[in-house]
Order: sequence, then C-alpha cells, then structure tokens
Amino acid sequence: MKETMPHWLDKQADLAPDNNAIESPLFDSITFSVLRDRAQQFAKRLASLGVKEGDHVAIYAPNSLEMVIAIHGLSYVGAVVVLLNTRLSKNELAFQIRDANVSYILTDEDNIDHFKDEKNVQIASFITVEKLQGLAITLKTEIYLDDVFTIMYTSGTTGKPKGVVHTYRNHWSSAIASALNLGIDRQDKWLATLPLFHIGGFSLLMKNVIYGMPIYLLDKFDVTSINQAILRKGVTIVSVVSVMLDRLIENLENQTYPAIFRCMLLGGGPASKHLLEKAKKHQIPVFQTYGMTETSSQIVTLSPADAFKKIGSAGKALFSAQIKILKDDQATAPLEVGEIFVKGPMVTNGYYQNEEANRTAFNQEWLATGDLGYLDGQGFLYVMDRRKDLIVSGGENIYPAEVEHVLVEIDGIKEAGVVGQKDAIWGKVPVAFLVADRKLDFDIVKQQCSESLAKYKIPKSFHIVEYLPRNASNKLLRYQLEEMLE
Amino acid sequence: MKETMPHWLDKQADLAPDNNAIESPLFDSITFSVLRDRAQQFAKRLASLGVKEGDHVAIYAPNSLEMVIAIHGLSYVGAVVVLLNTRLSKNELAFQIRDANVSYILTDEDNIDHFKDEKNVQIASFITVEKLQGLAITLKTEIYLDDVFTIMYTSGTTGKPKGVVHTYRNHWSSAIASALNLGIDRQDKWLATLPLFHIGGFSLLMKNVIYGMPIYLLDKFDVTSINQAILRKGVTIVSVVSVMLDRLIENLENQTYPAIFRCMLLGGGPASKHLLEKAKKHQIPVFQTYGMTETSSQIVTLSPADAFKKIGSAGKALFSAQIKILKDDQATAPLEVGEIFVKGPMVTNGYYQNEEANRTAFNQEWLATGDLGYLDGQGFLYVMDRRKDLIVSGGENIYPAEVEHVLVEIDGIKEAGVVGQKDAIWGKVPVAFLVADRKLDFDIVKQQCSESLAKYKIPKSFHIVEYLPRNASNKLLRYQLEEMLE
Repeated sequence: MKETMPHWLDKQADLAPDNNAIESPLFDSITFSVLRDRAQQFAKRLASLGVKEGDHVAIYAPNSLEMVIAIHGLSYVGAVVVLLNTRLSKNELAFQIRDANVSYILTDEDNIDHFKDEKNVQIASFITVEKLQGLAITLKTEIYLDDVFTIMYTSGTTGKPKGVVHTYRNHWSSAIASALNLGIDRQDKWLATLPLFHIGGFSLLMKNVIYGMPIYLLDKFDVTSINQAILRKGVTIVSVVSVMLDRLIENLENQTYPAIFRCMLLGGGPASKHLLEKAKKHQIPVFQTYGMTETSSQIVTLSPADAFKKIGSAGKALFSAQIKILKDDQATAPLEVGEIFVKGPMVTNGYYQNEEANRTAFNQEWLATGDLGYLDGQGFLYVMDRRKDLIVSGGENIYPAEVEHVLVEIDGIKEAGVVGQKDAIWGKVPVAFLVADRKLDFDIVKQQCSESLAKYKIPKSFHIVEYLPRNASNKLLRYQLEEMLE
Repeated sequence: MKETMPHWLDKQADLAPDNNAIESPLFDSITFSVLRDRAQQFAKRLASLGVKEGDHVAIYAPNSLEMVIAIHGLSYVGAVVVLLNTRLSKNELAFQIRDANVSYILTDEDNIDHFKDEKNVQIASFITVEKLQGLAITLKTEIYLDDVFTIMYTSGTTGKPKGVVHTYRNHWSSAIASALNLGIDRQDKWLATLPLFHIGGFSLLMKNVIYGMPIYLLDKFDVTSINQAILRKGVTIVSVVSVMLDRLIENLENQTYPAIFRCMLLGGGPASKHLLEKAKKHQIPVFQTYGMTETSSQIVTLSPADAFKKIGSAGKALFSAQIKILKDDQATAPLEVGEIFVKGPMVTNGYYQNEEANRTAFNQEWLATGDLGYLDGQGFLYVMDRRKDLIVSGGENIYPAEVEHVLVEIDGIKEAGVVGQKDAIWGKVPVAFLVADRKLDFDIVKQQCSESLAKYKIPKSFHIVEYLPRNASNKLLRYQLEEMLE
C-alpha cells in the first residue's frame, strides 16, 4: 500500500502559519505560511518554464532563501531535485548533470554563466523564474513516501561519483530517528551553516517543516556569525565538524553559550579527548555522530552522557536503524575490526541507474558503507577509518582514488598516490606522491587538476618518488605513504 | 519493499538499559533491560504452551505489569494480540473470541474461571505461563511494520462489534504523530490509568518503548492516586476524559501541579468553557483531542494556546494525518456539518474479516468515522456527535453533544446525557439525564437553555440520576439512557 501524508510544508503552514520558518541575518524572517505561499508561487512559475512532474531539476547555489523556496517549489511540482556541490569543477558538474538526466538547472544570478556550455539543459536563475507568470497547475497536496525527492552525488572508492537517491521516506525517517534521539523541544532553533546541497544541511530543511522548528540560515561557515547566533539569536542546536567546533570554542574566549543551547551535533569523525575537554569547560553538550549521504544524515549518535566514557566512539544506531560489522561475511566479535553495514528506513534504496554500484553495496537491505570499525562489548560503534582512505577536509569528503584518477591523465605522470596530511585549519588536506617520466611544473599540474577537480580536492603539495608502495596484487598501500609523510 | 526496524523493546533496552520503563505504586519500578528480559522469557514460555507465530492470543486483564510483559512477549513470538475489554458480558466476549479466531486466552489468576465454557480455546493465567519451562525458540529481533500486532473491538454502542486490526506501522505512526504534536522531553513520564485493553491505554505502551519514556501504571482510575502521581512522582503527561479532569481538579483543592507537568490530554468529547476555566485557574495545560480505536488513539489535537479561542473544537489533524468533511459525497463549506473522514498511516487498514464493514467504512485510504462535525474557517475540527446518536425532531437535526454542552454550563449541573424519546408529533424529542449537585428548578433550566439553544433543541423532560452510564473509556453510553426511558 502506498503510504501517503499531507505535503509537509502545506501541513506545517496549516498547523503553525505564523511561526517563523527561516531566520537569518541575511534577510527578514519568514513564517511557514509565507514560505508555503512563495514555494507554491515558485512551483507555478517553474511550470511555465516547462518543468513537469518527474523531471530532474538541478540546483546549484550557495545557501539562500531562494534555494530553500526552489527546493520546496520543485516538491510541489513533483520534480526530483538534484543537488550540485558548488565547489565542483566544470567537468565534475558536467558528469553529474548527464548522469542524473538533468533537464533544468536552477542557480543564482552570479552563476548563470557557469553552465553556458551545457547542451540539452535549460538554465534559469531564481530571479528569472520569479519574474515568470505562473501557470495554474495542480500542485501536490500529498506526498507518497516512496517517491524520489532528491539525488546527491558522492564519490566512491573507485573514484566515479554515484548519485544517491533519497525518497521522501528516507528524509522522513531520518528526521524522525533524529527526533527520537535528541527529543523535540518547542524552543528549538537549528543553525544551518553546512551547505544545503550536502545531506547535513539539506536534512535541516526536512526537520524544519516536519518538526515545525525554525532554522537559522547562514550562507557560509563564519565563526563569529555562528557564535553570535548562539549567543543572541536563540539557536539551540548546531551541526558541525570537529575542526569547526574547535574554532568556535577559540572564538568564544571566556563566554559560555546560554542554557537553552542544548546540542552541538558533531559529524565527520570522532572528537579528540582534548576537544571534548575544551567543550566541557565551555559547557557545550557534544553529540558525536556518524552518517553519510546514503543514510540521509546521522545514523549513529553518542550522547554527551557517554562522551567521556566512550572516547572515540560514534555511539549507537538510532532507534529505527541497525548496524553490524562483517569480516569475510561473518559477524565480528566485540572489538574486532570489520566493515560497517547499516540498515534502516533512512538508508537509500540505491544509487541512480548504477546497477554495478548497487550490486556491490547492498546485501538484502543492508548497505556496505566501505568504512571500517568495530563494536565494543556494549555495542558502541568505533569508526576506524572512513572508507579506508577517505580524506575529510573542512567537512568535505575527498576520495583519493578520484584525485589519483585525474592526476594520471596528466602528461608526464605515470602513477599517483594521494593521502591526507594533517592541517591546523582544515583537519586534513590532500597531498600527492607521483611517479613521473619527466620534470613536472606543479603549478601547471594544479592548473590541469582544476579543470576536473573541485579546489579542495587539488593536492596541496607533491612528492616525486621512484615507485609507489604496493602489495603483491599491485594494490596501492596508502598507509605507507602516510608513514612517509611523518 | 518491506519496512523493517529493530524490535522496539530490544532497541530501547539497548539504548537505555538502566532507565526506568515502568513505574507504579503497585510494584517496584523495572528498567527497559529487565522488561526486555522478562518479556523474552515469557515469549519462550508461551512457546512451550504451544503459541506460535501468527496465532491469535487474547489478553483479558486489568492493567498490570504481567499484562505489559505478556503483550511484549507475544510480539517476540510474532503472535497477534487480541485485547479484550474486562467489562464485557460473557456473550459479548464469546463473540469476540470466536470472531477474532482466538486460540489462546491469557488472563490473571482471578479471572481464570471466567472462560471455562469456552471450547477450542486454551486458557492460561500469567502465573501459569511464568511457571513453564521456556523453549529455546528464535525470538523476533526485527519488526516488519506491515505485520499485524493487535486486534481491538470497537465499543459498538449499537450494532455488531468490529475487530479493528492494527499493524505495527499504525502504532508506530500514532506514536510519532503524537511526538510531533506534543514534543519529546527527556523528563517525560506518562500516567497510564486508562485500560491497556483500549487504544488510549495501549498506545502508551508503544510510546513507552519507542520514546524510551517511563510510564506510571495504575490499575484503575483513582483521583487521589493520580493526583499523588502528578504531585509527587514526576508525572508530566496524563490522558483523561472530561469527567475525570473535573474530579481531579475538585480533588486538588488549592494545590497546583508542579511546573514540569506539561500536558493533560483530554479525549472523549470537548471540554466546556467552565471546565477549561477551572483547569486554567489551576494552571493545567489542557490539550483536547479526537480519536478512536481505528485511528490508533488521537488523530486531531487542540493546543492549550488555542483552547479559549476555539472552545468546543478538537483542533487540527496531527502532522501525518488528514481530515475532511463530506456531505452527500461532496466536501462541505466551512461551518457546514457533514461526516468526518480521516486518513493517515495511523488509520487501520480495516476490520478483521469483515468485508461488509470495510466496504462501508473505506473510500480509498479515507475512513468514514460515522461521526458528524465541521471545520471552521481556519480548519479547526468541531465534532458534533456520533451519527447514530443524532436526534431527528420534526425534520430538524439535534446533536445531543451540543445540548449537553449547554446543560453542563448551567450552575448545579455536573454531567448531562441527552437522548431522543419517541414522540407522536415530532418523531423524537430530546430528553436529558442530569447529575446535579443541588436541587434544580427545571423551568429555570429550560429558560437558561433557551439562551443558547433553538427551542426544538431544549429537552422536553429531565431525569435526575446519580451517575451516567459510561464505558471503560468513560464515553457516555447513550443507548443505555434510551433503555432507561423505555
């Protein structure tokens, strides 16, 4: 049986029309009823642009009210929203646009020329759409939970990005599982500073309309703005990564957050004891989490009560979710490392039109994350390594294979190995080890990389070596490169 | 695709093993891990009694820890729980046992002889089961949301009782919709005084394991025990019906509930302005609700903020739910009375093996409630009456609830029940049964009624009674008043 609900924004605008939906230092607050009205108008204007139910429409924009309105507007039409990372190179974007069968791209005025080479795709800025006369189409009043809402790309170990398909059920289940974990308080206001094109930011738009909770929207990560929002604007929950938390605390100096601030949700790797102690000194309750695009945001969370008892742990699977650790297809004993598998209604049903990736990643309803970890005797998860080689840099994921793949296409480079190097600001930055058959100009190499890679993925330094460390099956041993760095 | 979750009690016992699950003045508190262990033991003992997955097992008992353990135990086996109302006559029970294909009845020691005439059904007391050696069967570790969990018979004031089938999804969706309405606070403790065999009580067992929230269990409605639980035991939420709330407030005298008490969830009909004012004087936040067995408990709720603005209203449909009012198959205009239809994932998929009732009650996913009501201009629901209680007098419709609502506002009248009496001229005329706390002058009562009611709605005669007939959920049984007339 189809599971049906009233359209979430419609419903929230009916239940709490005059409550603030979105607050921001960038624009006047808007209520749920205004957000609904503007999203519905936008939907009708999208229709006159030609957008129909089932169309795949990409959004390429920094966090903004227009982007939020466009997302809900597309939902009213019944279109699928493809969220593009604004830091990607043109080649990366071109791949995703083609792979996801995108027929329209919505963007802000500044980026309208960014896609001028795209064929077979109609480009429109939010402002262009806003100026159109709307068509009197029938908008969605109900949501079928198994319909597709979004596609977001993530790169795998193979280096080729895969489109993670999220249904409305995935987003709903994620918001509900988080509510059962953190509770729902009528005072809550969640700060949205993570990009809305990533699941961490996008999931806040879902909590926004499902809980009826205002979000406080920022267009970029800015330490002072965030601390001001917490200190003066009633923000009660913030999602961050470790490196951001550290900078927030530094900036706080001797101030402490108000008592209503109740949750610093920390993703992107475990917190060090040192960081936890700093947070404790400032009375900041830190909830460490583990999640990924495929799980529609966090799926494992550690409560502050357990933070010091379980240092390095990401916690336990949320109420409706399950985790297991397998090694050679067998469940591991406690403390034994293996691959982390996840299951639950927030886990994607699959990658977009990618049979091979789906065959590799799914076993029944269990998703193989590619991440290594173990459970302790009480069932707490410890993530050892993100997808073995993943480099997390300022909250963005960098897959070495993807960067290596670009490097070896460059004339003169025979082999490439990329690993993360510790960095005071970004946590980690990528660096490359190269086997070359001529002398290289690294500025030119960087230039060539920038055609295919987002800036944050381009190696910050290069090391020429005679050969790369490999095992008997010729597999690159990146951990040996890491040892060489030290 | 099957939607799967970890078994709720397993999961909560894993997440919060040492937190209290059930508290009571009747027994020592037990934690989630102890509740899980006892329910799992009970499940293995049920297996040695012969209970298998898919069996229909009835429970006939007053609220008790044993009953809670039996319910979860049956869920671990994968059996369907048929909940029997302990106030029913033997004939009524015999009908339900047969109609629901019950093969086992579990009961307390006191009632073991109650079913001695039942053939083809095995009877066992909780204590008998507890003494059995358990079998080492495989218990459920996962829940398929579309599996059937419970069958409960509707009180059926007229006609043949129907078995309402609830899936795990229905109970889950009800608990989640309530959480989105009331919020989830880590301090919460919900008082369970309504019978667990009715949906109002049973739904608290679901919230218990899904939220990880302790419930405070009482075996009967007792004003002093309830007030003590609120005043001294940290209870934050209580579900009641109007008459219970009135008695709680009377008993409170000059005391007020502590600040953490945050919700008096009021079902079974709208509150009078008088009652709301009394509650307000005692700083009791009243949430009025509308719901039924078929909707797995409340589906419409009015927040205290709207209570005085919308007197007589039950509020708006919960987040995942929808309501509409139809008259002659057409949606009504605001304020126009029609039949109330409901839809949402908490609404039953149907009555057990009752094609005719299902054909009558369902139109697509919409359930015809048989209740009459209207929506105001802002979409707030006003429930007029159960359709079958409608009094048609001289071609005019009289809704008993409306007349009762006026009567209880009159000084000296504590409770009122209105029914139709056959009349040679008008077909039917309304007459009233009153519980009074002083001697009444009926001419003055009629005079006072005439201020709020059209003449044809004013009761033609009055009967003073000591109490009104009510069912286990305290719902007025008007058919018994009609019998008293004859």
